[in-house]
Amino acid sequence: MLKAAVLGGSGYTGIELVRLLLSHPDVEVTAVTSERSAGLLISDVFINVRNTELKYDSLDLKVLAKRADLFFLCLPHKTSQETVAFLHNAGKRVIDLSADYRLKNPKVYEEWYKIPHLYAPLLKKAVYGLPELYRKQIRKASIIANPGCYPTSAILGLAPLMAKDFINVSGIIVDSKSGTSGAGRSPAQPFMFCEVNESVKAYSIAVHRHTPEIEQELSALSHGNVRILFTPHLIPMDRGILSTIYVPLKRKISLPDVQKLYNQYYHNEPFVRILQNGRYPATKAVKGGNYCDISVFLDERSGKNQTLIIVSAIDNLLKGASGNAVQNMNIMYGFEETTGLLASPASP
Amino acid sequence: MLKAAVLGGSGYTGIELVRLLLSHPDVEVTAVTSERSAGLLISDVFINVRNTELKYDSLDLKVLAKRADLFFLCLPHKTSQETVAFLHNAGKRVIDLSADYRLKNPKVYEEWYKIPHLYAPLLKKAVYGLPELYRKQIRKASIIANPGCYPTSAILGLAPLMAKDFINVSGIIVDSKSGTSGAGRSPAQPFMFCEVNESVKAYSIAVHRHTPEIEQELSALSHGNVRILFTPHLIPMDRGILSTIYVPLKRKISLPDVQKLYNQYYHNEPFVRILQNGRYPATKAVKGGNYCDISVFLDERSGKNQTLIIVSAIDNLLKGASGNAVQNMNIMYGFEETTGLLASPASP
Amino acid sequence: MLKAAVLGGSGYTGIELVRLLLSHPDVEVTAVTSERSAGLLISDVFINVRNTELKYDSLDLKVLAKRADLFFLCLPHKTSQETVAFLHNAGKRVIDLSADYRLKNPKVYEEWYKIPHLYAPLLKKAVYGLPELYRKQIRKASIIANPGCYPTSAILGLAPLMAKDFINVSGIIVDSKSGTSGAGRSPAQPFMFCEVNESVKAYSIAVHRHTPEIEQELSALSHGNVRILFTPHLIPMDRGILSTIYVPLKRKISLPDVQKLYNQYYHNEPFVRILQNGRYPATKAVKGGNYCDISVFLDERSGKNQTLIIVSAIDNLLKGASGNAVQNMNIMYGFEETTGLLASPASP
Amino acid sequence: MLKAAVLGGSGYTGIELVRLLLSHPDVEVTAVTSERSAGLLISDVFINVRNTELKYDSLDLKVLAKRADLFFLCLPHKTSQETVAFLHNAGKRVIDLSADYRLKNPKVYEEWYKIPHLYAPLLKKAVYGLPELYRKQIRKASIIANPGCYPTSAILGLAPLMAKDFINVSGIIVDSKSGTSGAGRSPAQPFMFCEVNESVKAYSIAVHRHTPEIEQELSALSHGNVRILFTPHLIPMDRGILSTIYVPLKRKISLPDVQKLYNQYYHNEPFVRILQNGRYPATKAVKGGNYCDISVFLDERSGKNQTLIIVSAIDNLLKGASGNAVQNMNIMYGFEETTGLLASPASP
Repeated sequence: MLKAAVLGGSGYTGIELVRLLLSHPDVEVTAVTSERSAGLLISDVFINVRNTELKYDSLDLKVLAKRADLFFLCLPHKTSQETVAFLHNAGKRVIDLSADYRLKNPKVYEEWYKIPHLYAPLLKKAVYGLPELYRKQIRKASIIANPGCYPTSAILGLAPLMAKDFINVSGIIVDSKSGTSGAGRSPAQPFMFCEVNESVKAYSIAVHRHTPEIEQELSALSHGNVRILFTPHLIPMDRGILSTIYVPLKRKISLPDVQKLYNQYYHNEPFVRILQNGRYPATKAVKGGNYCDISVFLDERSGKNQTLIIVSAIDNLLKGASGNAVQNMNIMYGFEETTGLLASPASP
Repeated sequence: MLKAAVLGGSGYTGIELVRLLLSHPDVEVTAVTSERSAGLLISDVFINVRNTELKYDSLDLKVLAKRADLFFLCLPHKTSQETVAFLHNAGKRVIDLSADYRLKNPKVYEEWYKIPHLYAPLLKKAVYGLPELYRKQIRKASIIANPGCYPTSAILGLAPLMAKDFINVSGIIVDSKSGTSGAGRSPAQPFMFCEVNESVKAYSIAVHRHTPEIEQELSALSHGNVRILFTPHLIPMDRGILSTIYVPLKRKISLPDVQKLYNQYYHNEPFVRILQNGRYPATKAVKGGNYCDISVFLDERSGKNQTLIIVSAIDNLLKGASGNAVQNMNIMYGFEETTGLLASPASP
Repeated sequence: MLKAAVLGGSGYTGIELVRLLLSHPDVEVTAVTSERSAGLLISDVFINVRNTELKYDSLDLKVLAKRADLFFLCLPHKTSQETVAFLHNAGKRVIDLSADYRLKNPKVYEEWYKIPHLYAPLLKKAVYGLPELYRKQIRKASIIANPGCYPTSAILGLAPLMAKDFINVSGIIVDSKSGTSGAGRSPAQPFMFCEVNESVKAYSIAVHRHTPEIEQELSALSHGNVRILFTPHLIPMDRGILSTIYVPLKRKISLPDVQKLYNQYYHNEPFVRILQNGRYPATKAVKGGNYCDISVFLDERSGKNQTLIIVSAIDNLLKGASGNAVQNMNIMYGFEETTGLLASPASP
Repeated sequence: MLKAAVLGGSGYTGIELVRLLLSHPDVEVTAVTSERSAGLLISDVFINVRNTELKYDSLDLKVLAKRADLFFLCLPHKTSQETVAFLHNAGKRVIDLSADYRLKNPKVYEEWYKIPHLYAPLLKKAVYGLPELYRKQIRKASIIANPGCYPTSAILGLAPLMAKDFINVSGIIVDSKSGTSGAGRSPAQPFMFCEVNESVKAYSIAVHRHTPEIEQELSALSHGNVRILFTPHLIPMDRGILSTIYVPLKRKISLPDVQKLYNQYYHNEPFVRILQNGRYPATKAVKGGNYCDISVFLDERSGKNQTLIIVSAIDNLLKGASGNAVQNMNIMYGFEETTGLLASPASP
């Protein structure tokens, strides 16, 4: 049994991770931390969680380091920087769900997060934890930078195209719609029920911190320097991200050819599904699951050049965070990759 | 591997049952029927459902009877009457999720459902499938009448009290609040999004068909003739039933004594939890799980006699329907009772 | 033009009041206060509000007292106590939307609000501002205690019955369901979108502070000492209160007789409507309006004595707060009582 | 008093129109039709509607033509074609809320609606009823083609830019998010509560019928042939359209210059507001009002050419349908243009 700890286990991603790990047949959860809830039973703080007598610990790294081999970090950025470093130096493997080890270039990190990265050498060791792109590296990684929710939906939607010469990389637009759990669990006026309900709005247009993460991975895939325009929106629902992605084409291409490309690219992927026959992804169909549904559309009317429209749907807390982290763990420890993640999402 | 079929698998309870059975380690789903979707892939009709190549069959009982040993029926009442009879005569075991075999007295059935019961002798063989009350009988039953969603929440909330002499059985009020999936999947104007959203309303006050079912079981528990007042409400959410139950007392009693009574009554039940410390059940904490959360409150101010207030919460499609049906199956076939049902519900 | 000020205008009831007064033909809004938003344009804080250049002031009573003749107070209880006293002494008329002047008995106030009432003599001058009960007194009142949202729904639902000898006053249960705006606009974890959405729960069972207010008014109507059992619930919607009220009867009565009683009682009321023909009130049908819809049902099955079930629906921010406050103002100043309040609510 | 009739008054736009007209001081509603509800009181079919004793009539044009001077048509396309023609020939003025008279070119109409237009000559007489573009022509028009909901949000968002040489008209993308009332009131499985709630999805990508309407008006504004890419999405809320519009630029421009352009263009418009200081439009801020909120953003990172992002928000049933129709009526009859439409929307 792998001994695993979750640091920062009282936010939405943290508790979701705890929930998944408690049902995982190969894992024993040995510690879960929360500063505000230290000493309380997890099942008292989250009455949906059953089957555990665990209490929250406070974040004492020296003590905790002895209690587990794998550490999931659901800590704020900056805090995560040093915690990863400490655990890595202690010989532990780490899956970091913060943004701290996702950007390879510390200058880009500093530009977007407004603080320096104090552990730049470790950035080279960190593997960007998107199994569909880096499965081989994940197996042996000691530090996994688990991807952001928006980036997961954007990168999986675009990956099969990025190395192709028929797309125009300098005009990609990602228009994303997210459920409210992405904003976290801390009380804040804009995320009160009466503010979110019955409303849709855009936010952080062209300045959202997930932008450089998407660009880094798309650039790697396309062997060039990709800039995207990213627009997130807040939707009155708990979970789910739908990304509608616009890709200008350099030359004509047929829709069946693109669909074939996507099917081949994700042929062996257990959690990516290409919808056929003009079916539209819906966030509800992936809510509660680790899946990414993708569908491809072609607009032949748009100007002299065509535009591809890719629509991808994920559960932001699962494939966009904690589910994907468990998938990474399965790969790292040689468990069946789908263990604990394979059930169909419930509906409605 | 138990071969199981789901008759009527394109409604909300039907597809939820299919989803649960597809993940069950001891079951093979051999047939799922749907008249409107016959011939289509289940995963095309419900894009949330994965990991199956099954297509919907039409309801040809002679053919189907050969393909499974256990039949789950998610058919309309009346249709279920004869289908149960046919399968029973063919030597099959049946878990019927309709109301057709729940009421022991065919006259009561006819009074509330406005049609005669044509298979009255079979009513005696049918076991009311609430494991917390009838676990022993369920083991050997050939016909299970799976309880209604409202009755499950009401009966589990009241069972520990019914044989006690300190309650006044002739004044029990059950005020229930249900999510919209309880109304089924067929298109109907009152259940359109814009009608349900941002509204709460009562319906079928004092005339809802679940009334006699609740009364039958409470009467059996209290060894008397119990009449209740039942008021269902429609809530703008997908799933969940919260029942607020008012029980007038004949004499003073302390809240800790009642809590102790509930804790003892459900001590060995894997799916019933008594919340402590004044915690309030919330439907979200049981959404997606087979659990029933119960909390007990005492109003000492109400007149010369006290009133107990019991609050119970279930997921209407799981403990209130398909999850409970799987629990019954586990009992009938000697599987571990919690198999396929034990994961904590997700939140949010 | 009546000069009116709103003290505490950045909560949900405050801004709703501002919105109504800005459209009122006989009123000029001369000041609106908010400590957290002082100096900001109201229309910048609430982008839904148009047609005003007003900025928020801070609460400097000496300055404000000169700027208006009528003061609406949407302040926290306790703060309201002294503010009402100050303005009253300055010769101003006040409509207080807090709970501070609703309870006639200062001991009851202290028992439920845990602070003493320092202005007990003023309690006698304050009129409980429910026009359907106290229209005559409201006309000349200098202090109006605007009713609580739950009490409005409960009292209007029960008023026609309270003096009747066929009801049993010691067994009335009020089971209320409220939208989330009733919890106010201040950030708090339990009212975050992801906590409220897709859930229903009870709270403050048998201990909610609106209980003594309901009892005070029902006692006055029944010429006796009424105790009720009040259970509030939180519903995933913005606005609306539905109260399902259970009234045990001492002797048989016919439903048409009760309906006639209700129709007569509210015959001249512009904002109370008795639904006929078994129609069910829905909060959506009153959302955005100052109306109270009521429907009466009779359960003849409940024990040897019958039970009446009254269902009432209001918009908690309008008839339950700010709309009712404007109605009071209209009465106090001799405006047409329905001015600014008569439009039908929008739907959906 | 203007005598007005609403043909097709039992859908969401129809009843919203009836509601607005019943509160309009210069209008008498003399007839409202509904085939399915003929003979019923409007206030019985829609319990939110008060203050009217009107019953639904069936659609007998010969009778109805005598009862009003202005006819609002909320009929399905095709039916509207001939009804407009009949009423026009009878000398009546018509505001048609269907799509039948919006497209000037009957071939384009036939291409998208799959039926011929049998009254092509009347198309020339019809005025596209967007007051911000055609106020002068609306005054004298006998036939108003009231714009579609999506086109209103897109055209108002883009109008100030279309004649400018710094934009690239052949690359405009309109990504729209709509509440569910846009789908109408007729029962249909995809719009059931449990299907829409907790989900977001795209639909009709690149093939939605509002596309040619948007293109027609943008082409007229730009004096050229504009093709757009339009992607609608369904959002779990009742009302509101948010359009996020991407406009590629031919050369650099500063954001303040664009904001100034928008402010000047809409300077005298009572219902269009340009938000300043990076504020984001939200559909909730316009819900229940006839307003259109617009905000402009600039992405300087997107490739060598910049991209403008325009976000516009309307209530699809008001500025996107019935409110705009009343605004047209006010203009046609010389009423103050804002009569009956000026109140601030409620919030939350």
